[in-house]
Amino acid sequence: MSSSGLAKLVTAKSPAPTQRFTGLPKYNFVGGHNAPEGIPVLELTAAANSVLQREGHLLALYNLSHGPLGYQPLREFVAGKLAGRGISCTSDDILITSGSTQGLNLVFSLFLEQGSTIVVEEFTYSSVLNRLRNQEVEIIGAPLTEHGIDIVRLEELLEAQHKKGRPVRMVYTIPTIQNPTGTIMPMESRERLVALARQYNFVIFEDECYADLIWAADGVPPSIYSMAPDVTVHIGSFSKTLGPALRVGYAIAEWSILSRIVALKNDAGSGAIDQMVVAEYFSHHFSNHLVRLTGILDEKLKVMSEAIDAAFGSGVSYHVPPGGIFLWLKFPDYIDVRKLTAPALAAGVAFNPGPEWSANGEAARSWMRLCFALPSKEIIAEGIRKLSEICYAEIGFPEISGNRVRSQSRLPESKMNGDDITAR
Amino acid sequence: MSSSGLAKLVTAKSPAPTQRFTGLPKYNFVGGHNAPEGIPVLELTAAANSVLQREGHLLALYNLSHGPLGYQPLREFVAGKLAGRGISCTSDDILITSGSTQGLNLVFSLFLEQGSTIVVEEFTYSSVLNRLRNQEVEIIGAPLTEHGIDIVRLEELLEAQHKKGRPVRMVYTIPTIQNPTGTIMPMESRERLVALARQYNFVIFEDECYADLIWAADGVPPSIYSMAPDVTVHIGSFSKTLGPALRVGYAIAEWSILSRIVALKNDAGSGAIDQMVVAEYFSHHFSNHLVRLTGILDEKLKVMSEAIDAAFGSGVSYHVPPGGIFLWLKFPDYIDVRKLTAPALAAGVAFNPGPEWSANGEAARSWMRLCFALPSKEIIAEGIRKLSEICYAEIGFPEISGNRVRSQSRLPESKMNGDDITAR
Repeated sequence: MSSSGLAKLVTAKSPAPTQRFTGLPKYNFVGGHNAPEGIPVLELTAAANSVLQREGHLLALYNLSHGPLGYQPLREFVAGKLAGRGISCTSDDILITSGSTQGLNLVFSLFLEQGSTIVVEEFTYSSVLNRLRNQEVEIIGAPLTEHGIDIVRLEELLEAQHKKGRPVRMVYTIPTIQNPTGTIMPMESRERLVALARQYNFVIFEDECYADLIWAADGVPPSIYSMAPDVTVHIGSFSKTLGPALRVGYAIAEWSILSRIVALKNDAGSGAIDQMVVAEYFSHHFSNHLVRLTGILDEKLKVMSEAIDAAFGSGVSYHVPPGGIFLWLKFPDYIDVRKLTAPALAAGVAFNPGPEWSANGEAARSWMRLCFALPSKEIIAEGIRKLSEICYAEIGFPEISGNRVRSQSRLPESKMNGDDITAR
Repeated sequence: MSSSGLAKLVTAKSPAPTQRFTGLPKYNFVGGHNAPEGIPVLELTAAANSVLQREGHLLALYNLSHGPLGYQPLREFVAGKLAGRGISCTSDDILITSGSTQGLNLVFSLFLEQGSTIVVEEFTYSSVLNRLRNQEVEIIGAPLTEHGIDIVRLEELLEAQHKKGRPVRMVYTIPTIQNPTGTIMPMESRERLVALARQYNFVIFEDECYADLIWAADGVPPSIYSMAPDVTVHIGSFSKTLGPALRVGYAIAEWSILSRIVALKNDAGSGAIDQMVVAEYFSHHFSNHLVRLTGILDEKLKVMSEAIDAAFGSGVSYHVPPGGIFLWLKFPDYIDVRKLTAPALAAGVAFNPGPEWSANGEAARSWMRLCFALPSKEIIAEGIRKLSEICYAEIGFPEISGNRVRSQSRLPESKMNGDDITAR
C-alpha cells in the first residue's frame, strides 16, 4: 500500500487537507490575535513561579485532582468575574474548557443534530458557521441592526419556522460586542429574546468572548444568562482578555445541562499550566490588566479608523465598535472584497472577507473584517494605505485617497463629493 | 420552560449526565495518574521562567505564531525523541495534540465511520473502547499473549473478516508496554503486522504512550511507524513521562494523512504554556528525568507486587510489567471483580475492573487494573491489604493471607497449596 493508498482509507466526510503553514503576513488583520505589548510578561512569569512552586506536584494527577470541571481557583475566579455580568453562581457551576472553541463544539453537539434548525446573527463568527455546516444543520441568519439582533424580525422568523413545522432549537448570539459587527444588544432586546425562548422552546446560546473588552459604552446590560439561566447556556474565554495561544475558556449552565456537557468533554481535562497561570495572574490583576489592554486597543482602533478615513474616504463606512478587537468595514455594494484577497496577500496584507463571516455568504460580499489588535500602529497605518492602493489597482476604488484624486478620467464625478470627503 | 425543559432539548444521542465530583479516594489505584514526587517542581518553575520571559509576548498570537502543528521547539524536541524509537522525521512531520486523547479522537474520526471494523487488543485502554462504541463501529478484540498481540490468531481473524466482506480498516495497538497488560510486542510480530497491513489494506494505529517508561527490558524493538510510515499513524504523550494534568501529546503520519488530521483539529491550537514548559524542561532534562521517574516507578511496582503476594498468595497471578504504571491482576475465574467495586470504594480503595478494559467485557470479569504510580509506598501496601480483606469479606477469597489461614472451615483444601504460597 502506498502513501496515497493510506489516504484512500479516510472516510468520505473527512475535510480537505490543510496546506503547509508558511508564516504570518506582515500586515495581519485576520483572525483574533491580540496585542503582544498587552501580554504582561513579567507578571505572568511571577504568577507561573508562585503557582508552580505551590501546586506543581499536582500535575501528576488528572485535572490537578480538582475533577473534570477544571482547576478550582480558576473556577472561583470566573465565578467572581461573572458576578460583574450579573451572574450569581459558584465555582461548582462552571466548567473550564480548552478555549471557547471547545465550548462551541460541546454545546452544539449536545443540542443539535443533522437537520436541526439554528438561528445565528446574519454576520457571525466564521468558525461557528463552519462547525454548524459540518454538523449539517439548517442555519438561518437573523438580521442585525446597530443594536444587535433585529428582535422584531427574529420573532417573525421564529413564528414562520414554527408554522412550517421546523421549529428553531437554538439561537446562538454574541450579544455583547458582537463578532464581527461590534454591537451591543440592549436590555429590551435581551428581555424579549428570553420571552421568545420560553414561548418557542429554544436554547439561547450566549457567547461573551469580548464582554470584558469594552471601553466606549456606558451601562452595558447584564448577560442574558443572568436573566434566564433556565433557558441559556453561556460561554466565555480568556483568549481576548489575555491571549489566544492560551486555550482557556469556560461554560456555565444549570447542572442538568452542564453535567451533560461535562459528559461530552472526553479530553481528560484542559491544559493545567495554562489554567494555573491564568488563575494566579487574574486573581490579582484582572481590573488593572483590562485598563491597560483596553487602552492599547482603543489607541489602535483610532489609528485604524483614521487610516481608513484617510485612505478610503467616504466610499466605505463602518460603525466604530465600543470595544473588542474588530472593525467591520463596508465597501460599496458593487465591490466583492474577495477579489482583493489574493493581490492583498501578495503584498503582505491579510483581511477576513465578509462572506466567511456571513450565514448567507453572498450577503456580505462587500464587507471585510479587520482585526486591529495585533499589528503595531505603524503597521496598521501602512497596511490600510497598502490595502487602499491594491483596491484602487484592482477595482479602481477609492478614486480619492488622502484627499487627492487618483483618477483624472473620473474627476468630475468625484469632485461632487469633495466636501463630504474632507469633512469626514 | 423549566430547567428540565431545557434538558428535554438535548439530542437523543447525548450521554448520561456526569455525577458531581466528590474527590479522590485515599487508596487510589484507578486511572493513569503519575507519581507526584516525580514532578520536578523547581526545574519546571525554572523552565516556565525562561520560556515565558523569552517568548511570553507570543501568547497574543494563535499557536504562538508557529502555525497549527504547534509550538516549534516542542515539535523539534519530539522529533529528536522519536529518533530514539527509530523514527526519522523533522518538526514539520509532527502535530502537537491536547494529550493523546485528542490524537485518538482525530485519528478514529479520520478513518472510521459508523459500521467500520476495527481490531483492538482484547484488553485495551477503556477510553478507546468508549470512543469506538460512541462511533458505533464494530470492535473485534485480538487475543493477547505475554508478547502482545497473538499474530497468528490476528491473521486468521483478518482473513475471516476479508472473506465475510467486512474487511478490517484499522488495527489499534499499544505495542510497547501495552495498556493494561504491560507487554512488549517483539520485532517479528511487528514485521508480520506490517506485512498484514499491506496485504489486507488497513491502517496500523500505534499508540506509544508508555514507551519512554521502560526499566526492565532489553532491546525494545523500534516503533512500528519507523518500519512502515506509509501504513501507520503514531501517537504519543507527555502524560506518563511528566504528568496527565498537562494536556500535551503528539501525532506523526505522512503528510497526506497528517494534513487531514490537522484539518480535523478545529480547536484553534493546544494550550500554549503547557507546550512551552514541556519543551523548555525536556529539551534540557529528558534523560535525567526518565532515570529518576522510572526509579520511583520501579520501587512502587515492587512494593505493590510484594503487597499482592503477601495479601493474596498464589490465588491471583500477574505478569510483572517491564515498565509503565499498571499491574494487570488476574483473580480466579469464578470471581467477578465488579462485585468488589462498591465495597472497596466504601473503604477508600479504588481499582479499575477488567471488563472496562476489555473488547469483550465479560472476558475480563476476573481481572483488575491497578495503577501503582500515584499512591505512596505506604498507601500501596495498606491499600492492597485492605483490598484483600474486602475481597475475603465479600467473596471468601483469598482464604490465606500473609501466610495465615483465614477460614477454618476450608482449611484442608487451602493447606494443599501452602508450600507454593510461601515460595512465591
